[in-house]
Amino acid sequence: MPEKVVIIGSGPAGWTAAIYAARANLDPLVFAGRPKQMPALVLPGGQLMLTTEVENYPGFPKGITGPELMAALEQQAVRFATRIQTDDGQNPDVSNPDDGHSYKYHDCKHVDLSSRPFKIIGEDDRVIEAHAVIIATGATANWLGLENEMRLARSGGGVSACAVCDGALPIFRGKELAVVGGGDSAIEEATYLTKFASKVYLIHRRDQLRASKIMAQRAADNPKIEILWNKIVIDVLGDEKISALRLRDTQDKKESELPVGGLFLAIGHTPATAFLDGQLELDSKGYIKLTDPYRTATSIEGVFAAGDVVDSVYRQAITAAGMGCKAAIDAERWLADQGIE
Amino acid sequence: MPEKVVIIGSGPAGWTAAIYAARANLDPLVFAGRPKQMPALVLPGGQLMLTTEVENYPGFPKGITGPELMAALEQQAVRFATRIQTDDGQNPDVSNPDDGHSYKYHDCKHVDLSSRPFKIIGEDDRVIEAHAVIIATGATANWLGLENEMRLARSGGGVSACAVCDGALPIFRGKELAVVGGGDSAIEEATYLTKFASKVYLIHRRDQLRASKIMAQRAADNPKIEILWNKIVIDVLGDEKISALRLRDTQDKKESELPVGGLFLAIGHTPATAFLDGQLELDSKGYIKLTDPYRTATSIEGVFAAGDVVDSVYRQAITAAGMGCKAAIDAERWLADQGIE
Repeated sequence: MPEKVVIIGSGPAGWTAAIYAARANLDPLVFAGRPKQMPALVLPGGQLMLTTEVENYPGFPKGITGPELMAALEQQAVRFATRIQTDDGQNPDVSNPDDGHSYKYHDCKHVDLSSRPFKIIGEDDRVIEAHAVIIATGATANWLGLENEMRLARSGGGVSACAVCDGALPIFRGKELAVVGGGDSAIEEATYLTKFASKVYLIHRRDQLRASKIMAQRAADNPKIEILWNKIVIDVLGDEKISALRLRDTQDKKESELPVGGLFLAIGHTPATAFLDGQLELDSKGYIKLTDPYRTATSIEGVFAAGDVVDSVYRQAITAAGMGCKAAIDAERWLADQGIE
Repeated sequence: MPEKVVIIGSGPAGWTAAIYAARANLDPLVFAGRPKQMPALVLPGGQLMLTTEVENYPGFPKGITGPELMAALEQQAVRFATRIQTDDGQNPDVSNPDDGHSYKYHDCKHVDLSSRPFKIIGEDDRVIEAHAVIIATGATANWLGLENEMRLARSGGGVSACAVCDGALPIFRGKELAVVGGGDSAIEEATYLTKFASKVYLIHRRDQLRASKIMAQRAADNPKIEILWNKIVIDVLGDEKISALRLRDTQDKKESELPVGGLFLAIGHTPATAFLDGQLELDSKGYIKLTDPYRTATSIEGVFAAGDVVDSVYRQAITAAGMGCKAAIDAERWLADQGIE
């Protein structure tokens, strides 16, 4: 018997889709991905696992950590009998941290959407058939790839890839901050951060911005923004918290130190859609295209998408969760239309 | 000085918009509505205040009550210095239940969007000016208007206006349930409930359904659905929990009792848009139209809308919260484009 619905992804969109699908008796199966295996298609828990304090997820007035929030979503999905694909076929006991369940999560390698039921191929080549698929594989912020950058991002030490998410945190207030990037979104993030920072350095590796004229002008007009041209970040300094950046000039190759209280990456995101091998319509940046942007149907009937894998605009946990809910409701109604119970 | 952004509404969309707007230093002012005053434009806390157990809001694996969730969202908004419009101009201490703050909430009566800054007119005729407005006034499920119906809805006694929200609750499992309505969404809800119920009565006041042919056929084909024609519900019986409905036949006027374990209303929703007096484009059902359905801009630049007031499809707390976040981000970016800091 094919599965009614398989969910690929375990960020806010994936688990919310699972909660709603499970409560609709669709008995969902989740490919939650494999931690500590890079590159993995699905990073268990999604981008929030790289975040410490989450202050803006509605419902937690005192804040919650990213991993705590994701554990709560997972437990809620499992409470309603969501099943998680694992190496050994056993459903992990997610309420028991000693269960070691995270090591049993199974990643998805490939999907075949060319015939029905669809096929989802696991990393061990097991094939799962499904009438409906919800893709919630997310997008990964692009990082510089420096060891200290990732260490401080994971520990809440003042390195972030999302100004809207983290800019308002107390550790950044009144500080001099740096944004790396040169596109529209880099300027949007830099402008946003001037609300909190005493000054924002925009670090760009070229001698002119990729951003649109109007955005470049906005950066030039903002007295709190200083653009550092022809510079790349070669190291991030600081033990517990970021203290400075090590920069190299791309022209004279000279190195320098820039003391900062925070670093924000704004060099784009990569949606996790390569595994689709062109089977679904994507936009020019690689995000999955929806047939109706208010809903979650994709170019193949029965395949739905939710969360950052379709969202190059908002990328918030709460917006991803909202779309996950929509995808489960859309899938439920589509399955009912097909007479699949 | 005009406000940067005024938010009208205090359901999941309104408070989430406030959380995000406050964290973006927009210093939002919320018209949260007035409780216990009917008709009020804004019902404080929105539809969730009529709900007891909320099992599907992602983040609460053990569930949370509707009023608890709304109190948490409000506290979170206030924590980031959201201001709430009150009768006496004092910001209520929402962390202190003895503050009596709910009685100080102020409703909005009218808006004037014909010139900038926009004007928001309070119930006492005070005028607040604002550069941007986020409308999150929600939609109200239509009820029969019976005293026992509302009493049991408020107490979690088995009366609900949302099958997707409440259908999976343990109190409805294996029971005989009733759905009142005759449109597509009534059949959608009845079909959904057959996943949990032993039987679903669809109670319709006419001798044929308003629903589309395909949906009417689906109801006819489902062995668990029985349609009771020409019947209206004249009372809901039961002290703590619903035990039966009192029905009247619209033709022979005879009354009868129908034992049920749950009642679901599916007779439509009314979006709270009458106060707009046609200033914003609405769809044929009265919901606010978005210029781009993925975003939250309305037909008037600088006016954004989120939550059930635009949503005739999903109507979930989590989808409304997601849209509230989008509206705040859209408003923030629009204000930045206008050079309003």
